[in-house]
Amino acid sequence: MSFVIKSTAERAEAWSALFAADLPDQTVEIWPDIADPSAVEFLAAWVPPPDLAKTFPNLKVLFSVGAGVDQLDLSAVPDHVQVVRMIEPGLTDGMVDYVRFAVLAIHRGMLRYVAQQREQVWKAHSYRPAADLTVGIMGLGQLGLPVIEAVRALGYRCQGWARSRRDIEGVRTFARQQDLDAFLEGTDILVCLLPLTAETTRLLARPLFSRLPRGAALIHCGRGKQLVMDDLMDALDDGTLGAAIVDVTDPEPLPTGHPLWSRPDVLITPHTASITQADTGGRSIVENLKRYRRGEALEGLVNRTAGY
Amino acid sequence: MSFVIKSTAERAEAWSALFAADLPDQTVEIWPDIADPSAVEFLAAWVPPPDLAKTFPNLKVLFSVGAGVDQLDLSAVPDHVQVVRMIEPGLTDGMVDYVRFAVLAIHRGMLRYVAQQREQVWKAHSYRPAADLTVGIMGLGQLGLPVIEAVRALGYRCQGWARSRRDIEGVRTFARQQDLDAFLEGTDILVCLLPLTAETTRLLARPLFSRLPRGAALIHCGRGKQLVMDDLMDALDDGTLGAAIVDVTDPEPLPTGHPLWSRPDVLITPHTASITQADTGGRSIVENLKRYRRGEALEGLVNRTAGY
Repeated sequence: MSFVIKSTAERAEAWSALFAADLPDQTVEIWPDIADPSAVEFLAAWVPPPDLAKTFPNLKVLFSVGAGVDQLDLSAVPDHVQVVRMIEPGLTDGMVDYVRFAVLAIHRGMLRYVAQQREQVWKAHSYRPAADLTVGIMGLGQLGLPVIEAVRALGYRCQGWARSRRDIEGVRTFARQQDLDAFLEGTDILVCLLPLTAETTRLLARPLFSRLPRGAALIHCGRGKQLVMDDLMDALDDGTLGAAIVDVTDPEPLPTGHPLWSRPDVLITPHTASITQADTGGRSIVENLKRYRRGEALEGLVNRTAGY
Repeated sequence: MSFVIKSTAERAEAWSALFAADLPDQTVEIWPDIADPSAVEFLAAWVPPPDLAKTFPNLKVLFSVGAGVDQLDLSAVPDHVQVVRMIEPGLTDGMVDYVRFAVLAIHRGMLRYVAQQREQVWKAHSYRPAADLTVGIMGLGQLGLPVIEAVRALGYRCQGWARSRRDIEGVRTFARQQDLDAFLEGTDILVCLLPLTAETTRLLARPLFSRLPRGAALIHCGRGKQLVMDDLMDALDDGTLGAAIVDVTDPEPLPTGHPLWSRPDVLITPHTASITQADTGGRSIVENLKRYRRGEALEGLVNRTAGY
């Protein structure tokens, strides 16, 4: 039985070393150098090889190297294969830091100062105290919960929205479509951390933006296809939104010449909010493989029906 | 005895209301409408009127409306007049938020992404965990202490340097010129919060930059005259420094056409890191005036010899 790593060279090297130290009996192979495809039971990949079922007929577990699994064509993964999202502290810390940065940048008007610098204008603007601003987090899972705690610790009021009801101490939470308007009406800075599903596709669009207080800001760290880009630009143009920081776009990568690039009221980062770290990400995979060997449930197991 | 407010209209209005509510027996006048200059015992101002000793011959306390007093010509303030810096939670919170923003922006390479956006380039760069970076704070006073605590809470290693030795739990501290090199050698992100004195004038210059690890970053929230601007640009050009976020410049405001404006490795904000808030700043003045009436020491009293 072989464990195949199909990822960056840095991760392949780090993870091979972790397996050698911690699970020395485990055969590890680096894609595409596979001795016997029928011996492959485990695969860690962002995008698996084409025709997965035929390539690795005896695959038992597919480990996504990212927090999401929406890049996977789950219909091409046989039903008996367990699919696992990456849950690792480096990925969480990266998202926490990114959202902290983005909330502070919005709060303190930094997009305006970047634009003023380009125009060589020295002009200060007043700001409100953090406690006067409400940050609304969409998505209260492995990333959303630590993010909401971190943003609260910065002094902002926080509220959360998720598909199902969550109880978080000191945080007002909302659930399902029926609560969405009430959640949006109190949100000055909206942070999207939702997984990509049929329900969240194109959710960040005109109807949603129009329920936010006028001039609210969007921080988008979910998936590009959740955002209707033309609606975002229209909402910024007419003042519905005041600013946006987007780490994901549709299409992605954002093509040269796209009008979003040149907007002074948008900061674009290239899907870099949170990156699986070689050391802690490898540790997470090794620990999950140990759970598998002990017959325990895998951490981050994907509900194939819900899609995340 | 009259209390004169010489500041923005917003502060004059808010502070008059606070006095009326909390110290109703106190006469308050808004500059320049002064009934009897000889009755003026208290003045709150950023820059006092010219010829202060003659204008208000019976002045007892001069309240600076900002955290610094370097804008004051102390030689024009009679020796018996007490000079007080502004210490108020809004001013502290503002600086804490700004430094949090700036450290996160440096850590996550945001100046590079701003520059890439201008070039319409979608390219992610790896980042280190916060715990791998050391933030060195210069100045451990009313602003430096809460800043160092806040930056530690974000997960960065922190160390501090000040004119005199300070003991801060969990933080390595350095003092005086003799420790400066050791402090700088371990600092990846240098934050200047020092007051402007003869000793700190032009301190941020080539010799200091050259002691930092190659490619270190500067966050300057002190005073413009502490920074030798040409040395900053040289250090960025030759890679001694990797990036800078500056809230203060020399000269200030930064004139149109100055080469600092157009550098992609520098973010300039217009002296807006920390602004005295009308409500909490007024509260601080009222509380200090109560201390004065009770014969107690004033909070933020300036040591006229040290200059801060």
